[in-house]
Amino acid sequence: MKQLRLALCQMNATVGDLDRNADKIVRSIDEARRHGCDLITFPELALTGYPPEDLLLKPSFVRDNLRMLDRIVSHCHNITAIVGFVDAGDDIFNAAAIANNGRLAGVYRKRFLPNYGVFDEDRYFQAGDQYPVFQLGDTVFGVNICEDIWYPGVPTAAQAQAGAELILNINASPFHIGKAEERARMLATRAVDYTVVVAYNNLVGGQDELVFDGSALVFDQLGRLQAESDQFREQILYVDLDLERVFRARLHDPRIRKERRGFDPVAARVTKIVLEPRSGDRAPVPPAAKIPSPSDAAQVYEALTLGTRDYVLKNGFNSGVVALSGGIDSSLVAAIAVDALGSANVVGVSMPSRFSSKGSKDDARRLARNLGIRLITIPIEPAFQATLEMLEDTFAGRPADVAEENLQARIRGNVMMALNNKFNWLVLTTGNKSEMATGYATLYGDMAGAFAVIKDVPKTLAYELARHRNCQAGYDLIPESVITKEPSAELKPDQLDVDSLPPYDQLDPILQAYVEDDRSLEEIVGMGHDPAYAELAIGLVDRSEHKRRQAPPGVKVTRRAFGRDRRLPITNRYKGA
Amino acid sequence: MKQLRLALCQMNATVGDLDRNADKIVRSIDEARRHGCDLITFPELALTGYPPEDLLLKPSFVRDNLRMLDRIVSHCHNITAIVGFVDAGDDIFNAAAIANNGRLAGVYRKRFLPNYGVFDEDRYFQAGDQYPVFQLGDTVFGVNICEDIWYPGVPTAAQAQAGAELILNINASPFHIGKAEERARMLATRAVDYTVVVAYNNLVGGQDELVFDGSALVFDQLGRLQAESDQFREQILYVDLDLERVFRARLHDPRIRKERRGFDPVAARVTKIVLEPRSGDRAPVPPAAKIPSPSDAAQVYEALTLGTRDYVLKNGFNSGVVALSGGIDSSLVAAIAVDALGSANVVGVSMPSRFSSKGSKDDARRLARNLGIRLITIPIEPAFQATLEMLEDTFAGRPADVAEENLQARIRGNVMMALNNKFNWLVLTTGNKSEMATGYATLYGDMAGAFAVIKDVPKTLAYELARHRNCQAGYDLIPESVITKEPSAELKPDQLDVDSLPPYDQLDPILQAYVEDDRSLEEIVGMGHDPAYAELAIGLVDRSEHKRRQAPPGVKVTRRAFGRDRRLPITNRYKGA
Repeated sequence: MKQLRLALCQMNATVGDLDRNADKIVRSIDEARRHGCDLITFPELALTGYPPEDLLLKPSFVRDNLRMLDRIVSHCHNITAIVGFVDAGDDIFNAAAIANNGRLAGVYRKRFLPNYGVFDEDRYFQAGDQYPVFQLGDTVFGVNICEDIWYPGVPTAAQAQAGAELILNINASPFHIGKAEERARMLATRAVDYTVVVAYNNLVGGQDELVFDGSALVFDQLGRLQAESDQFREQILYVDLDLERVFRARLHDPRIRKERRGFDPVAARVTKIVLEPRSGDRAPVPPAAKIPSPSDAAQVYEALTLGTRDYVLKNGFNSGVVALSGGIDSSLVAAIAVDALGSANVVGVSMPSRFSSKGSKDDARRLARNLGIRLITIPIEPAFQATLEMLEDTFAGRPADVAEENLQARIRGNVMMALNNKFNWLVLTTGNKSEMATGYATLYGDMAGAFAVIKDVPKTLAYELARHRNCQAGYDLIPESVITKEPSAELKPDQLDVDSLPPYDQLDPILQAYVEDDRSLEEIVGMGHDPAYAELAIGLVDRSEHKRRQAPPGVKVTRRAFGRDRRLPITNRYKGA
Repeated sequence: MKQLRLALCQMNATVGDLDRNADKIVRSIDEARRHGCDLITFPELALTGYPPEDLLLKPSFVRDNLRMLDRIVSHCHNITAIVGFVDAGDDIFNAAAIANNGRLAGVYRKRFLPNYGVFDEDRYFQAGDQYPVFQLGDTVFGVNICEDIWYPGVPTAAQAQAGAELILNINASPFHIGKAEERARMLATRAVDYTVVVAYNNLVGGQDELVFDGSALVFDQLGRLQAESDQFREQILYVDLDLERVFRARLHDPRIRKERRGFDPVAARVTKIVLEPRSGDRAPVPPAAKIPSPSDAAQVYEALTLGTRDYVLKNGFNSGVVALSGGIDSSLVAAIAVDALGSANVVGVSMPSRFSSKGSKDDARRLARNLGIRLITIPIEPAFQATLEMLEDTFAGRPADVAEENLQARIRGNVMMALNNKFNWLVLTTGNKSEMATGYATLYGDMAGAFAVIKDVPKTLAYELARHRNCQAGYDLIPESVITKEPSAELKPDQLDVDSLPPYDQLDPILQAYVEDDRSLEEIVGMGHDPAYAELAIGLVDRSEHKRRQAPPGVKVTRRAFGRDRRLPITNRYKGA
């Protein structure tokens, strides 16, 4: 019987924390051994965290990572472990170690290095060109890394043709809306294409602007989902594989057997490495309870919560502070902060001005009560008045304009940063993607802070997330009046967002077409959008690059976020027409 | 006689301004034609500006660039022009058009795409694999692009073996200290290695964090510098080449002739394209007056001035505002701003607090007078006092600390941004590289602004630059007391930089070793640096990544600047030990 017990460790690694990442790996190996596993996989670059960026250019960092790998390998008895690390030879490689009974039995080096979107792997690594397979008892498996399996040919093809019945694909693949579906479809197709079992394992946790959602997945040789982990939390997924079925399936669907005719392992760059199988009996593994697949809104909410928690905690803070205006964005961010850090570790700050409505102040108060957080109230009028007087001579004869509006936002920013300096609370900012896109935010004002929780969440999605959270709570945790009132910055009398911007339900699809899909104005109008709104929106996006460049980081949730995902010059005279 | 008159157009292109870049190219072609030139070269991606970044992912942008190229090509009569553009076929390519008598005679596609340091070319382009040469009358030349000639083999080798006597290498190669020497040495070596004339042409001008210094250079077949443009300004360099000498030199040094034995143009991916030579007489070109090679400090000062001017003007502003503390950094930035924009377009702002010394206020006043700029004085005490009172309850029982210090810096930032909003003056910030490295600066305070002129200038170099400028002025333009006094942030009584940081003459070499050269603590101590200072400095650098991420852009002048040149995670537990 070709039976294999597999553990997929969905691990939250911290970039640069080599010691603790190695500790976690060792503990998980121990746990898998106790469960009688033959094999355990860890995510891509689990040892260093992902992405290590220019840490990879420090020779000491690469050396330290190799030292930690030695420790893991020597600990790996009566089990085989697949561990993502940085291999160093005549160059450096994004690699997987195959550790077997205390020795490094083999290394697989990533073949396809992504260098688009948020990825910069060509900056660091050379590509591998060898596709080893591993014999463990009766079964043969291949290992490859993330991007590799998104290509239909090698290395998966070479490994399957060389006899692999199981492909272990390890990943550091960041979340965006809709990715789970694409991924599942592709993996199922690969399993069917090569009549192999595909076991997919991904990192979990937040790292600066990225959130890794985990999602360990096992597809059988017919493309059927056999096992699946939960998203957004650490977990080891256990699964018993019957690889006998792979060969039976190949008898009925002989494509891979035909492709193997005349297969030349040297030309195909394949070697076979024999591993020592585990020994001893084992009890059955109880099936894991699986949380039902969450909706897009639920996934995004989880991603934002995990991203915020990990940013705060991994940077050595334990509490956050949020400016509460009584609007939808700050209310949503406060709710996420509480879910991420606990209500005892979140402080709300109300900073009313002469233009703040009573409704806004009441909403902020009600929200803080619902969330059970401390609320500090600091009216900004004294500093506003003093600053206006300081500027009186210089501004003499000039009408009030955006200068006076921004003053208020920046006094609030100053107060928030003073709280940060005094109490070591990390400032969470509240701008959404529609604002970041159009520049409808004050640099050093409401944009001042360490982490911009919803900067990649379009305004219309912010409403959905608020409703999702209220639905989960079973009551109006975020007050209904917050959700239904007309959005306003309240920086001058009777100000409304729609005085400056298209209505959000029309703005957001235009922004998606321009920012995420690189559509031209002509194309966007051709899609049926209002030409005046489209032109206004595109002009605002183009003119706001300098603001986004100084914005704090925040969680990527869409296909294309601002930041490393979309790299545009500030000095740029191209009109996106 | 194998005579060729060559024009190297050292052009200041603006990213995305396809129309105006094309106009400039057309005007320069006309001028070169009037001077009887056979050939004119333009820099790498002269048509789009460099780097266009994710504009390259917009199909409309690539299409518009091709349309502009058509215009240029059809204008190109009785002369041959080499123009950098984005070629599009089954992919997109960083390319050079060879335009000859109204038609596109050929295209060279860049072979080596840099993807390190500030470069991301693998993100966009595919590499070319063909090395055409061009016959123009009696002479044969090859064209290649920037990075290509930094490799000792192909394409230069293939082109020379295919008979090229002249290599035209077009560039968009940003300035850093010491690059001019490296470049000249390499180009001279290539000329000797292949017994060819090498004509190097580079972009000039500022683009966000980069400054291109120009430096057209012609090395003859013996590696002797034959002609050279000025750095840091637009110019067309004319040179008459006698390519007869190349063949004669090959008779005496037959290496390239030996390498050509058995040369197979198909295997070497070389084709020869015949161009139509110009017709008509011509007068001799008068030799250009060359400014003597400037010192490192002079080059850096020029780079900062050009970078600042282009950032301000290309972004549609015409004046700048600088907060003058009376210290060395703000004084230097004000001097650069005046050289970049003219004294009528620079405003100084003095914002004294209760902690400002009389000396500082006097120095700011004297500097403004020397520079001939308007000085606005706005004491910050009222807003400082008002904000302290607003925070009194919340801060009750806590001792004064960095919170109160930063409040002052942020009130100043708020005033500067109010001036920006009211008068459309672009805010130039004054932090140097030593401060950016160690985080000795206030986010949203003195870091608030559009352009950080000297962010890549270590403090010790800032002093050198001030002395250089004074020497140039012939008197103490920057008052001697500014240069000699002990550096202080003046945010609390009797504060000095050395209370928080190692002395700058010890700090700067440590920072260079850690930030620019990726040395570990152990190595830095091994180099003879004070262990306590090294540990302090490295810790400060590592803990300040979040500040740098929100810093405004500024001119790169060192081998490795903060920004796209050094990409480190914020969330990072690796200790650079």
